[in-house]
Amino acid sequence: MAPRTLQIACAGLGRMGKRHALNLLHRSPRSTLVAAFTPDPVEVEWAETNLVPYGVTIYSDYDALLAHPGLEAVLVSTITTVHAEQSIKAIEAGKHVLCEKPLSTDAEICQSVADAATLHPELKVMCGFSRRFDTSYRDAYSKASSGLIGTPSIIRSQTCDKIDPTGAFVNFAATSGGIFCDCSVHDIDLILWFFGASSKVKSVVASGTVSLHPELKAYGDADNAVGIIEFYGGRVAYLYCSRMMAAGQEDTTEIIGPEGKLVVNGQAQKNLVGIFDRTGARRELPAHYYERFEGAFVEEVNEFAEACLDGKELPMGIQGAVEAVRIARALQDSLVSGEKVRFGEDGRRV
Amino acid sequence: MAPRTLQIACAGLGRMGKRHALNLLHRSPRSTLVAAFTPDPVEVEWAETNLVPYGVTIYSDYDALLAHPGLEAVLVSTITTVHAEQSIKAIEAGKHVLCEKPLSTDAEICQSVADAATLHPELKVMCGFSRRFDTSYRDAYSKASSGLIGTPSIIRSQTCDKIDPTGAFVNFAATSGGIFCDCSVHDIDLILWFFGASSKVKSVVASGTVSLHPELKAYGDADNAVGIIEFYGGRVAYLYCSRMMAAGQEDTTEIIGPEGKLVVNGQAQKNLVGIFDRTGARRELPAHYYERFEGAFVEEVNEFAEACLDGKELPMGIQGAVEAVRIARALQDSLVSGEKVRFGEDGRRV
Amino acid sequence: MAPRTLQIACAGLGRMGKRHALNLLHRSPRSTLVAAFTPDPVEVEWAETNLVPYGVTIYSDYDALLAHPGLEAVLVSTITTVHAEQSIKAIEAGKHVLCEKPLSTDAEICQSVADAATLHPELKVMCGFSRRFDTSYRDAYSKASSGLIGTPSIIRSQTCDKIDPTGAFVNFAATSGGIFCDCSVHDIDLILWFFGASSKVKSVVASGTVSLHPELKAYGDADNAVGIIEFYGGRVAYLYCSRMMAAGQEDTTEIIGPEGKLVVNGQAQKNLVGIFDRTGARRELPAHYYERFEGAFVEEVNEFAEACLDGKELPMGIQGAVEAVRIARALQDSLVSGEKVRFGEDGRRV
Amino acid sequence: MAPRTLQIACAGLGRMGKRHALNLLHRSPRSTLVAAFTPDPVEVEWAETNLVPYGVTIYSDYDALLAHPGLEAVLVSTITTVHAEQSIKAIEAGKHVLCEKPLSTDAEICQSVADAATLHPELKVMCGFSRRFDTSYRDAYSKASSGLIGTPSIIRSQTCDKIDPTGAFVNFAATSGGIFCDCSVHDIDLILWFFGASSKVKSVVASGTVSLHPELKAYGDADNAVGIIEFYGGRVAYLYCSRMMAAGQEDTTEIIGPEGKLVVNGQAQKNLVGIFDRTGARRELPAHYYERFEGAFVEEVNEFAEACLDGKELPMGIQGAVEAVRIARALQDSLVSGEKVRFGEDGRRV
Repeated sequence: MAPRTLQIACAGLGRMGKRHALNLLHRSPRSTLVAAFTPDPVEVEWAETNLVPYGVTIYSDYDALLAHPGLEAVLVSTITTVHAEQSIKAIEAGKHVLCEKPLSTDAEICQSVADAATLHPELKVMCGFSRRFDTSYRDAYSKASSGLIGTPSIIRSQTCDKIDPTGAFVNFAATSGGIFCDCSVHDIDLILWFFGASSKVKSVVASGTVSLHPELKAYGDADNAVGIIEFYGGRVAYLYCSRMMAAGQEDTTEIIGPEGKLVVNGQAQKNLVGIFDRTGARRELPAHYYERFEGAFVEEVNEFAEACLDGKELPMGIQGAVEAVRIARALQDSLVSGEKVRFGEDGRRV
Repeated sequence: MAPRTLQIACAGLGRMGKRHALNLLHRSPRSTLVAAFTPDPVEVEWAETNLVPYGVTIYSDYDALLAHPGLEAVLVSTITTVHAEQSIKAIEAGKHVLCEKPLSTDAEICQSVADAATLHPELKVMCGFSRRFDTSYRDAYSKASSGLIGTPSIIRSQTCDKIDPTGAFVNFAATSGGIFCDCSVHDIDLILWFFGASSKVKSVVASGTVSLHPELKAYGDADNAVGIIEFYGGRVAYLYCSRMMAAGQEDTTEIIGPEGKLVVNGQAQKNLVGIFDRTGARRELPAHYYERFEGAFVEEVNEFAEACLDGKELPMGIQGAVEAVRIARALQDSLVSGEKVRFGEDGRRV
Repeated sequence: MAPRTLQIACAGLGRMGKRHALNLLHRSPRSTLVAAFTPDPVEVEWAETNLVPYGVTIYSDYDALLAHPGLEAVLVSTITTVHAEQSIKAIEAGKHVLCEKPLSTDAEICQSVADAATLHPELKVMCGFSRRFDTSYRDAYSKASSGLIGTPSIIRSQTCDKIDPTGAFVNFAATSGGIFCDCSVHDIDLILWFFGASSKVKSVVASGTVSLHPELKAYGDADNAVGIIEFYGGRVAYLYCSRMMAAGQEDTTEIIGPEGKLVVNGQAQKNLVGIFDRTGARRELPAHYYERFEGAFVEEVNEFAEACLDGKELPMGIQGAVEAVRIARALQDSLVSGEKVRFGEDGRRV
Repeated sequence: MAPRTLQIACAGLGRMGKRHALNLLHRSPRSTLVAAFTPDPVEVEWAETNLVPYGVTIYSDYDALLAHPGLEAVLVSTITTVHAEQSIKAIEAGKHVLCEKPLSTDAEICQSVADAATLHPELKVMCGFSRRFDTSYRDAYSKASSGLIGTPSIIRSQTCDKIDPTGAFVNFAATSGGIFCDCSVHDIDLILWFFGASSKVKSVVASGTVSLHPELKAYGDADNAVGIIEFYGGRVAYLYCSRMMAAGQEDTTEIIGPEGKLVVNGQAQKNLVGIFDRTGARRELPAHYYERFEGAFVEEVNEFAEACLDGKELPMGIQGAVEAVRIARALQDSLVSGEKVRFGEDGRRV
């Protein structure tokens, strides 16, 4: 008999929800997608064609989904504003939870998810920072852990999206939490990973520009921003996030220590093709984050299933996901106020 | 009800057979691995753990495998010497066939597989030149087809393995057909793809060295070899194959035309990590072909399944696989004799 | 008769002074090195061998140097603390001046040089920001000016030195003005070039670490530092400077606009050699700035001579050199205080 | 008094002659350009402006040039057809000779220069294979010599020119000796350097295409060609030469041994600028060989002067220049005949 698989549901069938559902269905040997939730009729229609034939039950009511017989886990991939509520409900219903990042754009709400998880230590609760599952980041982490570069003291990290001439992110600004919450939260998670989960932020400061969309100002947002994060103990990270990359997605991280440095994605590339023509020698870049991180998303659901089924430890704790949002929010506040935001050693804003 | 899947068996559970079996089991949504064949008790033991729990029946008799109820297709991944016989048997039993490359190291025997396939036009018969399924090669092909570089007239292609200090390939030399048959056959397949399946070889010539293993000479083989292939109509390809790469696998192809050139894997890399230390800035390379082409092998079985189920055309014809071996053999002969091998316009050796 | 050459003297024969003197002697067709100044007996000895045979007169008194018959210009390459005084003296003596960067680590003193130059509009007075003469930076500038990337709004720039295990820069900290004055002043000059000389700084903020040399703290200095510069009108630059690069010198600049970005030295390299061995594929990096910018230093003295002889405009004004130090000082102050430093639209610190 | 300089003349003031003359004049501290020869009135006019003001005497008669008072050396940079005659005359007149490559397109004529040089061991006679003076090739040679890659057994080398839409090289075909003599002779020289001057060629074979200019066939030439060179003792080199590179000059060499490989110019680049725009990330390439090798040409005349003045050994012997042409000619013959050309161990064609 085939090994038991994790009976999992996917909440939300938007752009990323669809990808998650298909990954669970076809690329996650230890998961069985048994149900999906969406209130959207267009998404239901998509599910009729793509999920239902495989025995997936579709729910338009989230509580009904949670009541699906035998359900063990939920992948929450709805809009950010309901991530926390749905995660907590699932936890309280005794389900393992893999929630898309961020848990919330509000650090307190994030904390409420972590608190719910703490009350249910028997459940696996993870926020999906997909880069932690990327082979290149993992290789870099393994090399850093082995001492290859000494103790790292400086990290540069950027999340830079290809320019979207439709400016869709402007509409998104109202709920995204801003560019630091939406983009840099990944970099902050990586920084906490490489500097260590116990790193204590001391201050953050940020600046930005609205090069493309002046209307972003109304949301306290920017289309390009940079920030500095100081940690107690003398480590510093600096960030760049952008919606303005002409060539494509460019998510680059440098971890720098006295013995050397590790660079992840220093030469962004779509694939291994070089094109030589009258304009020179060029390569294409990924069009978006999924083109860059598709493999990591697949690995993520696989390892989540494995952790749930075998009781293994998850590769990262839920508290880090709270901390990442807390730092991102402070950066976003600094972007608006122009002021440095300081934290005490107890972790509270001064 | 979930869409019907292809009922497929895997013949051979050696290094590559294991990978194929697992890909069919876990990463090929439209295939169901129902059976596997291996005469090797150690491989049977592996199958007991890894395949049997998923409902796969293991056979130590190939004819019994073919008689498995409901079987529709066979992936032949045994040793090269039985590829042709098993493929023909499967074809004659009415099964679709995906055979690992090469069909045989003997062009006549290859042809016998193609002949069997011709007699069964209702069956899909494919030789697994995995690079045809690699996203980078496909992107390059698509760009070349769109006219980006004009009509290509020169191709450089190399298949270069990481050095294996155990010299395992020396033992393999007796049955591999030699370095051109084992390694360059991939490059030749690519050349026939980019130059067009109707390209007619005019001559080949080759030279090699035994830098590492003088005992290869006894097999008419080399550990490094270069070759030139001339085609009627004025196109030229040149090859390098090696067992001696210190840094890792380096399979590179350049397609050159008057408007530009396309390079696939001009900068071999294991992943996207850059390492800066006292020795400079470096990247690691893939350790072997599977690290480089894993995704292509998965795509290969998926597209094969799709073609069988939906009656779609395969991305390449079986006759090309015969031609590739014919050219590889001629190069190997030239390596031994030191003579240029010429072909008439009718395709026969002069 | 050969065209008239510029009769020039070199003040200071330290590490960089020697290089300048030899460049003037052997690689600057329109200059004639007629004199040199150094108070150091060891440097005089070097000059006896390397300069005197070519007819160069050596002075241990700077005023005597200025009185050298027929002298037209002085290249000031002494220690930073006397740059301004010697430059002003030379200007007042009616000599053209090319002064090594920075004019001073004090912005007021820098301004006094600019003021002296203003009183002598017939003289060419330039601060040697060598990167302005580097072919790659010039190519990037030319491309940016042509509108290739739209109006740039973000610049990232770093000056990162190879780690020096002797920690010589610690002793240097007392007079260097700190890491922003010593290293980042180059980046700031580039930023003023690419954003335009009329850019008005609005604020700066900085953070740093003392990863290697805790004793730097006593000097208000760091061995790694990052900073953000905001300009009025909505442009932002961010900086990284370091004494800790294991692999070598890495001076990289990205100029980012809505239509694209230009990267200078994104892949630092000593030369065009790739090394493939058991550790992977690597390149070496320049060991220091002169290995990277040697050609720019030669071009610098050549263009300076040309400007003096032919009355051509210099590629950059002296006021920019004052501004660069003013910004560098503010960053250094922020590094120490942890406070953001703000400037009014009139250019004064708030 | 300034050290004595080499009194040198430049014969020929064509495209390359002009560059040599200016390098001797302005960038070669130990040379004094005292005279130049050209029969061409347009070139004389250029010399009036650019050389005569510096005291250079212009001759339209080569014998008169050789009689220039105090002349010690001649740089022969006329058309290839007179290289040998002028070199021999200069040698017989007791002058050191630096002759542009090739000495002749005929190996026997090349040998006559070497023979003349042998009769005058007191003179320095060198054929200008400029790549020997390139810092990257030298670094690779130094690394190979230190044993970094073990004993190299395979070399790949290519000389590929940017496409010239005017097809000027077609007219040049009549006197160039063909693409192997014109382009690959550089690669052959490098191969003899890296494999060792005592390497004995065993056979060569070549193929080519006329992708752009069918009229080349009349000259026994091609616009793209590949070749294999076998050496006694088991080493192999393979070549590619082309007039068809859309993106620019691409001269690449790989030296491959059992411990690793060295690649020179694996990523051809004009400078250190990366351009990111809607088409991806690209770099520009050198437009021609001088853009790539300018520094090597300067170094070449400097080291030649040094050898002449100080009696130092030249970095390469004249006999190698004969051997390189002999191999190039054999490749060109093979290109036309389609036959392999073999050599006995005594060095004679079989």
